[in-house]
Amino acid sequence: MPDKVEKVKSAEELSRDQREISVSEFFEKNRHLLGYDNKVKALLTVVREAVDNSLDACETARIVPDIKVSVKPAKDIKDRYVISIEDNGPGIVKENVGRVFGKLLFGSKFHKLLQSRGQQGIGISGAVLYAQLTSGKPSKITSSTGDGKTHHMDLMIDTFKNEPEILKEEVKEGKVWHGIRVEMEVEGKYVEHQQSIPEYLRQTAMSNPYAEIIYDGPDEKIKFERSAKNLPQVPKSIKPHPHGVEIGILRRMLKTTDARTLAGFLTTDFSRVGQSSAKEIIRVAKFDENVSPKNIDGPQVEKLFQAIQQVQLIKPPLDCLSPLREKLIEEGLKEQLRPEYVVAITRPPDVYRGNPFEIEVALAYGGELPHESIATLYRFANRVPLMYQAGDCALAKAVSEIEWRRYGLDQASSAALPTGPIAIFVHIASVWVPFTSESKEAIASYPEIIKEVKLALQEAGRKLSIYVNKKKKAGEAAMRISLFEKYIPEVSDALARLSGADKHKIASKLENMLKKGKIVIEDTEESKEDVKQKEDE
Amino acid sequence: MPDKVEKVKSAEELSRDQREISVSEFFEKNRHLLGYDNKVKALLTVVREAVDNSLDACETARIVPDIKVSVKPAKDIKDRYVISIEDNGPGIVKENVGRVFGKLLFGSKFHKLLQSRGQQGIGISGAVLYAQLTSGKPSKITSSTGDGKTHHMDLMIDTFKNEPEILKEEVKEGKVWHGIRVEMEVEGKYVEHQQSIPEYLRQTAMSNPYAEIIYDGPDEKIKFERSAKNLPQVPKSIKPHPHGVEIGILRRMLKTTDARTLAGFLTTDFSRVGQSSAKEIIRVAKFDENVSPKNIDGPQVEKLFQAIQQVQLIKPPLDCLSPLREKLIEEGLKEQLRPEYVVAITRPPDVYRGNPFEIEVALAYGGELPHESIATLYRFANRVPLMYQAGDCALAKAVSEIEWRRYGLDQASSAALPTGPIAIFVHIASVWVPFTSESKEAIASYPEIIKEVKLALQEAGRKLSIYVNKKKKAGEAAMRISLFEKYIPEVSDALARLSGADKHKIASKLENMLKKGKIVIEDTEESKEDVKQKEDE
Repeated sequence: MPDKVEKVKSAEELSRDQREISVSEFFEKNRHLLGYDNKVKALLTVVREAVDNSLDACETARIVPDIKVSVKPAKDIKDRYVISIEDNGPGIVKENVGRVFGKLLFGSKFHKLLQSRGQQGIGISGAVLYAQLTSGKPSKITSSTGDGKTHHMDLMIDTFKNEPEILKEEVKEGKVWHGIRVEMEVEGKYVEHQQSIPEYLRQTAMSNPYAEIIYDGPDEKIKFERSAKNLPQVPKSIKPHPHGVEIGILRRMLKTTDARTLAGFLTTDFSRVGQSSAKEIIRVAKFDENVSPKNIDGPQVEKLFQAIQQVQLIKPPLDCLSPLREKLIEEGLKEQLRPEYVVAITRPPDVYRGNPFEIEVALAYGGELPHESIATLYRFANRVPLMYQAGDCALAKAVSEIEWRRYGLDQASSAALPTGPIAIFVHIASVWVPFTSESKEAIASYPEIIKEVKLALQEAGRKLSIYVNKKKKAGEAAMRISLFEKYIPEVSDALARLSGADKHKIASKLENMLKKGKIVIEDTEESKEDVKQKEDE
Repeated sequence: MPDKVEKVKSAEELSRDQREISVSEFFEKNRHLLGYDNKVKALLTVVREAVDNSLDACETARIVPDIKVSVKPAKDIKDRYVISIEDNGPGIVKENVGRVFGKLLFGSKFHKLLQSRGQQGIGISGAVLYAQLTSGKPSKITSSTGDGKTHHMDLMIDTFKNEPEILKEEVKEGKVWHGIRVEMEVEGKYVEHQQSIPEYLRQTAMSNPYAEIIYDGPDEKIKFERSAKNLPQVPKSIKPHPHGVEIGILRRMLKTTDARTLAGFLTTDFSRVGQSSAKEIIRVAKFDENVSPKNIDGPQVEKLFQAIQQVQLIKPPLDCLSPLREKLIEEGLKEQLRPEYVVAITRPPDVYRGNPFEIEVALAYGGELPHESIATLYRFANRVPLMYQAGDCALAKAVSEIEWRRYGLDQASSAALPTGPIAIFVHIASVWVPFTSESKEAIASYPEIIKEVKLALQEAGRKLSIYVNKKKKAGEAAMRISLFEKYIPEVSDALARLSGADKHKIASKLENMLKKGKIVIEDTEESKEDVKQKEDE
């Protein structure tokens, strides 16, 4: 035992300090977790949260989105900007405006299993929090649902309570429109660079070609035109799949279900459990199928859980996902990057921790892509461009695990991106994207996700390598032809001496034949199988 | 305008899905944010959260900690472990046990500005959440505050409400003791490796040498002995410093203060504002010093905020910090790593975003450290070892920015760790450690922090380089001596011929002189200034 024990403070004394922390206070102190760790990124994060919401709202209401983004320096104050985002979405009913913008962890997407941009109920209220923290000012919200009434609110978040604090409220009647406008004053620094707001909007236009986005920045005005007319298919909300449900969730579902029997519970509260699967599960678990779910507790939950794992079930339904599809990705990349060749691959859906997801990749090559630099990687999650933290992202990790040399591309070292006129596009669509932080900048490294991205890239790589190889051969052939052309005088001279014919005639004939492709300069070709074989080694 | 607009869903329809998300639900779905992203790490995270709490509680109550950790496989279930942690701390009063363990965002440390291991009020309740999610079972808590009553509770978290759900409760009377015991059954995988539980405990013992930790693992029992007798100084809670307060916080402080006048508010609610500084701030802001803080709102908050920035103030007080100090670090490293040389540096405190912090580093060299490998980096935050996500951590980043070659060490490339028998230790002590996620594994890259770590490492590097250079010289000298020794027969033969003396006598005299160090094999020495100069280039 130690020989010196100081005065012991009592547990009672210590207990006085223990109290609840509101989630607003938590993120106020930890604002870097929401993407507000520096002034440059903060501006982008505010814009991104608002645009994500606008796109989600428009799609859910089946409205083709028109979005206006404005970023202007505030008067007289250094490093302060006024940002506004306006959409033509369905608007928000007056009763919910306060909580959507003024309460963290409030939203419509968290409890649903369907693909959407927002999922946490933190994004836009986090921006309101950042605005009030750094400018001391309320956010100005304007909303109309198309009923001729326009609601204006100035609001802040009461961080102790995590509840909206409405400072001003008014209704104007007359104008019929629907949509939302948000205006915030925030601390920030505006820098044009690779991760800037215009670049984010350009990539957003690439992955959401049915949206029109008008950007009014501090120094420029850009219009991103709509390049597709139709909205993507509506993803449908699904029920959880039994194989993806953790035992603690199963226990809670048993307690809160409306079903009266275990069989009813299994068939109605889950996807992919029919009558016979339910019976099979109940048989394996050795339960009575009419037992009430509410009476299953303690070790019985474990028994049921283990039985579920043992019964084979169809994979989850996939209409909860809305990938971009190969055609749209190819069109988007051609429009934005103007390469000479694009290949896009949409993989069949897979599942991680019970959550369906789908990977799409594309490789763009040549054309107006810069020739002497390292490939550019574009990462997307549920159609949202990911601009930061590539080093921490499963999508980037998978890209770095590809041996690009196998596909005829140059690569400085084995974990490096390829060099040359190449752009790499990776998109994950999922009902629940596992972000590494609340700032939604990088994807957590689930092995299932990394594997799918690699398979997709390998398939795209094989296709690209055929193109690149053909191009190389064509280039080599062209070079041989031009070399042959140079020697036509010597060749025809020699032929003239041998045959006695006129050397000028021979020369012009040879030239004609070359032009018409009648002299073929052959070369061995590395076949597809060859590339395939290398990969499998 | 697009030519196809589908049926518009009304805002009313959409509003039905909007609802509150409890913070427990949020982290249940996002458990990777708390460090539960894989089975191996999950076991460590559970142990770490409980041990952190035990150490914090003991120190606050001035009790020299005795901690017992047990990790045993659960019966009959694969990948399932029973973990228990027991301490001799002050215990928790019965009324608070439920919320400390069964409510996320509840605690005593969040609202205080003083150095502690926990700060978020998420750690241990996050572990309870993980346990119930993956085993479906409650956590078993035992607590006594020394009053002869021992309370037992089986509890879970009601994730919809984020409130404790107490399944069983009992009191036993008679035994007088104080402390807490937690037992949880969790999904996990036990692997002995660099980031394992014993390694975490070994590093914890290194940075908390006044604690005794007994580990009872699946395959081994280890006792980490107490190597220091006294607890570190108690850090004191401080008030916020005006220069670190953001405008939104200032606004809230004005609204909630008990002070009646602005002058009173400034002098009592902040640190480092005396009467004259308060008067100066009020003069610059052009306010009346008797104005009530509650009447300052809107643009006036901005005026006050700007005035505060313009007035010079002393830096925040530093007794809120409790660094390890150089002596303790050196002792700890010598004990654990058995090197031949250690240098430790504790930097003077600095401030980021108003939060005082202090950096300490150490370099251990030679001895039992492995010779042919890359240096090991040990990272600590408020005495807690950081085992994961080094790639994302400001401490590791700063280490990689040092040019170790300048200090006489080998280094494969410029951003690499040095190679050779070296261990690098870095500790950040702060009232608010800016972790990159709730799992508290890596430090966010604030420039102030990176700068301080680099300065400390450079200072340590200079000291180490003197030692390493001396050792090199000594090594070279020894080699020359041994070479000289080899040639003694030839030399004495030659001298004998020249002088006519007996060659055996000459040889034995030469040998004697060498042994007594009278023949000095000289070498030019690279001076301290030389190293210093290189660094400044």
